[in-house]
Amino acid sequence: MPADLVMTQLRAFVAERDWDQFHSPSNLAKSISIEAGELLECFQWSDASDLDRTVAELADVMTYCLLLSDKLGVDPNGIVLAKLEETKRKYPIEKAAGRSTKYDRLPD
Amino acid sequence: MPADLVMTQLRAFVAERDWDQFHSPSNLAKSISIEAGELLECFQWSDASDLDRTVAELADVMTYCLLLSDKLGVDPNGIVLAKLEETKRKYPIEKAAGRSTKYDRLPD
Amino acid sequence: MPADLVMTQLRAFVAERDWDQFHSPSNLAKSISIEAGELLECFQWSDASDLDRTVAELADVMTYCLLLSDKLGVDPNGIVLAKLEETKRKYPIEKAAGRSTKYDRLPD
Amino acid sequence: MPADLVMTQLRAFVAERDWDQFHSPSNLAKSISIEAGELLECFQWSDASDLDRTVAELADVMTYCLLLSDKLGVDPNGIVLAKLEETKRKYPIEKAAGRSTKYDRLPD
Repeated sequence: MPADLVMTQLRAFVAERDWDQFHSPSNLAKSISIEAGELLECFQWSDASDLDRTVAELADVMTYCLLLSDKLGVDPNGIVLAKLEETKRKYPIEKAAGRSTKYDRLPD
Repeated sequence: MPADLVMTQLRAFVAERDWDQFHSPSNLAKSISIEAGELLECFQWSDASDLDRTVAELADVMTYCLLLSDKLGVDPNGIVLAKLEETKRKYPIEKAAGRSTKYDRLPD
Repeated sequence: MPADLVMTQLRAFVAERDWDQFHSPSNLAKSISIEAGELLECFQWSDASDLDRTVAELADVMTYCLLLSDKLGVDPNGIVLAKLEETKRKYPIEKAAGRSTKYDRLPD
Repeated sequence: MPADLVMTQLRAFVAERDWDQFHSPSNLAKSISIEAGELLECFQWSDASDLDRTVAELADVMTYCLLLSDKLGVDPNGIVLAKLEETKRKYPIEKAAGRSTKYDRLPD
């Protein structure tokens, strides 16, 4: 599924409903947190979650992420790759392999 | 930036560090909430946020979303579009235009 | 530790720093979500967390909860008890005992 | 409303439903994030929220905070005050007054 097609459809959905007025970056950031909480609710009492519900909640988080990236004028895949380069530097393979330690506590 | 390339790079990053063992769906859902909180922190006291920091935090949320979609075996753009179809039905243009009302409180 | 003393100290702390101007209900709600994310980070990759760090993050969440209750003009312990009465009705012992099922999916 | 009474009632509520088995620290931390998201939803599109709904959601966050403090064996008011002492040191009045700047960016 091409990413451009998704953004085009999201923009049309928002425009048709005249919802851009509500989509300030701050409101979209709140929306991402709210939907992330609903996604987390799928795992509240157990690590085993219902797949359909989990996928639907994940889609909600991603939708608001795409809307925020569009509002900020950045390419969603581009910013993920740029951040990945930074994360690679913070977590060198030889130090981070097999550990979940945060970068500022990795051994020197 | 093609979406497939991003997923390929993310998978390589995780594999090289042997981090798949930490990436249960539950842990990834927690990670999405944690990073969503860091994104929200950009807007904690003001609606005006620093762009570079906001983009970096948004990238972190999206990275974990992509990893979770991969772990669940679903196409990230596909699930966003599928959910959009559902949302369109919940928010018909003639009822929802110009309102931020939740669907279960829209007028009949 | 009496609850009144805590609120008195929190109010003095805020007043001395002239921070009331930042503490709108909306900003405090964001702060609660942000701190809840930091608390969750203690459990990101493992159910075993560092106690001191967990307690410090929990204290941050509670601090903003107390500030919000004060801003809304409600008694924090009073609203917890009032909500508990409501929750008791939603989760009758004979139906809810030993189950983590959400109330709207409990058996009739 | 005395804090001890609240904790006694919360403990009885949980014991009667045999829910302690679900209340691991990790699950309670997830629950705090989930409820914080529901509280934030009261402010999703506007800084003006419905008071009754906001209070009910705040009570849910506080309830899980109290349950987590009890599970960790700490006094909720005590940990808030202890953290306040630490925060006072991080934010000296003469530097922090009238500013929402994070402590690590305060002027020297």
